[in-house]
Amino acid sequence: MRAGIIGTGLIGRGWATAFARAGWDVSIWDHVPAVAASALSSIKTALDDMAAVGLVADPAAAAARVVVADTLSEAVDGADYVQENVPENVDAKRDVFELLDKQAPQGVPVASSSSTIIGSRFLSGIRGRDRCIVAHPANPPHLMPVVEVAPSPWHADAFVGETCRLLASIGQVPVVVRQEIEGFVMNRLQTAVVNEAVALVARGVMDPADVDAVMKHSLGLRWSLMGPFETMDLNAPDGFLDYATRYGHLYQAMGRDLHVADAWQNDTLQTIEDRRRRDTPRAAVGERMRWRDRALMRLMSLKNEL
Amino acid sequence: MRAGIIGTGLIGRGWATAFARAGWDVSIWDHVPAVAASALSSIKTALDDMAAVGLVADPAAAAARVVVADTLSEAVDGADYVQENVPENVDAKRDVFELLDKQAPQGVPVASSSSTIIGSRFLSGIRGRDRCIVAHPANPPHLMPVVEVAPSPWHADAFVGETCRLLASIGQVPVVVRQEIEGFVMNRLQTAVVNEAVALVARGVMDPADVDAVMKHSLGLRWSLMGPFETMDLNAPDGFLDYATRYGHLYQAMGRDLHVADAWQNDTLQTIEDRRRRDTPRAAVGERMRWRDRALMRLMSLKNEL
Repeated sequence: MRAGIIGTGLIGRGWATAFARAGWDVSIWDHVPAVAASALSSIKTALDDMAAVGLVADPAAAAARVVVADTLSEAVDGADYVQENVPENVDAKRDVFELLDKQAPQGVPVASSSSTIIGSRFLSGIRGRDRCIVAHPANPPHLMPVVEVAPSPWHADAFVGETCRLLASIGQVPVVVRQEIEGFVMNRLQTAVVNEAVALVARGVMDPADVDAVMKHSLGLRWSLMGPFETMDLNAPDGFLDYATRYGHLYQAMGRDLHVADAWQNDTLQTIEDRRRRDTPRAAVGERMRWRDRALMRLMSLKNEL
Repeated sequence: MRAGIIGTGLIGRGWATAFARAGWDVSIWDHVPAVAASALSSIKTALDDMAAVGLVADPAAAAARVVVADTLSEAVDGADYVQENVPENVDAKRDVFELLDKQAPQGVPVASSSSTIIGSRFLSGIRGRDRCIVAHPANPPHLMPVVEVAPSPWHADAFVGETCRLLASIGQVPVVVRQEIEGFVMNRLQTAVVNEAVALVARGVMDPADVDAVMKHSLGLRWSLMGPFETMDLNAPDGFLDYATRYGHLYQAMGRDLHVADAWQNDTLQTIEDRRRRDTPRAAVGERMRWRDRALMRLMSLKNEL
C-alpha cells in the first residue's frame, strides 16, 4: 500500500511516520523542497524513538519506505490514500484540492488534515468532491491515534467507510463526525476546558500551574484511559444512567455557571505566560518538548500492554 | 504521625490507603461499624495491588498501621490531621463537624472531602471554624494525587498552609482554591467536557463511544502528562502567549458556540447508557472497574518513572 503525503510540517511528518510504521510505502511532498528533505530525518528520529519503547520493530526499514517526491503529481502517483497537510487557510486548501483531485488515482480517498476549517469551505468547487473528506488527526498523529473523519455536504459514504477502514488498518482510531460542525469534536472538548481554565485564572480562583495540576493529577489520568462517558458509567453502582440520575442536576446547574464564552483578557494571558516561564524557562522548552514526546510514546506503549 | 479518617466509603478508604502508604498511623471510623470493618480488607487489597507495581514497599506493614476505632472520639484521639468523608449532605457535614471540632486535638486541621458543597454551607456555626477547611480529593485519592484545598470565609491561612504541607508530605498534590466557588476547579473542568459531550450526542454529531475515543486517544493522553496551559505552551514556537495570539480568536469564537448549559434529555442519556452496555455488558462492569484501577496504578508508576 502507498500513501501520498502533501505538506510536511509537523502533521504531515507525523502521518508519514504512522503510515511507514504500518508497513506502507510513503511519498512525501512539500512546496518548499527543503522542508520535505528535513522531514526525512524527523521521521527517522521518530521511528527510532518509537522502536526504543517497542512501538516499531524495524525502524530502519520503516524509514526506508519514505521517499521525497519531486512534484505533487509524483507524490500521489500510485497512491491508495492521499492526506493533505498544507497550512490552515481556505485558499491554500482549495488550491491544493483542485490539484489533488485531478492527479490522485481515480477512486482513492483524498483527505485533509484541516483542524479548524470545515470541508464545505474549500470543497464546493472540486469536481471529485465526493471522494474528498476531512480526516483531522490529533497532533502528532503517530503518537495520538484518534482521527476525526468529517463529512462535507458532498461526500460519498463509501469513501467515508474506506477512509475509516484504511486508517484502522494502520493502527489509527477513526471516529466519524456525522455533521459539519465548527471545531469537529476534539477541539470543542478542548475549548470547553481551556476557556473555563482561562476564566478561572481571570477570576483569581486558582494559580495557572495549579489548574494544570488538577488536570494532570486527576481528570487527565482517567481520561487517558477512558472517555467522559465510560468514566461516569463506572462511577455509579448501576452505570451511566444511574450516575446521570444521581448527579445530572449538579452538572446542569454548574453548566449554567461556567464561563466558557468569556473574552480572554491580555493580563490573564500574561499571568499564564509568566507562570509557564517560571516553571519551564525559555531555554528548557526544547527539552520539555522532547520529554513530552517520549512520555507519550511510553504512555502509548503502556496502553498497548493494558 | 497519625490521621483520623471519619467515614469509610470509597473516599475514606482511599485516604486511609494514602496515609498508610506514607507511613502514617491511621484510625478509621464509620457510623456503621460493618462498613469500617470491611474497609480494612479493601485497604489491604489496594496496598497489595500498589505493591505489585512498585508503589508501596511493604504493604503488610502499611495495612497493619490502619486500625478501626470504636468511636469518633477515639478515631481523632492523638491525630495530627483529620479527614471527614461522610455522605454529601449539608446536615450530615454540619453535624459531624460539630463533633470533630470538639473532639479533635487543638491546633490540628480538620478537613472535609466535600466534592459539591462549599464550606460556608456547613461551617458557619462551628466554634473552631478557622481550622476547618475543604480538602477535596480526586476519586480514589490513593491513585489520583491532586487535592483541592478550598477555603471557607473563616479559615485561618496557617491551617491552609499546614494542610498543604501535610498532604504534600504524604505524596499528594495540594492546590489552593482561592475563593469559594461551586464545584471548586476539578468538577468545573469535568462539567465543561461532560456537558459539551452530552450536547454533541443530543445533537447527533457523534456516537457516544466515539466521543470517549476522541478523549482517550488524544486530549486525555496529553492532559494526563500536562494540563491545558502547558499543552498550549509547548504547541507554539514562542510559548503560551504566542499560542494565545495565534489561536485565541478561534477558542473565543468556539466558546460562544459551545452547548455546556443545555438541559440533558432523557433520550440522550438512554442512548449513552445503551451504547455503554453494548461495549461493557452489565456482567463485565466489575472486571472493567478492576482494570481501571490497575491501569491507574500502572499509569501512576509510569509517571513516577518519567
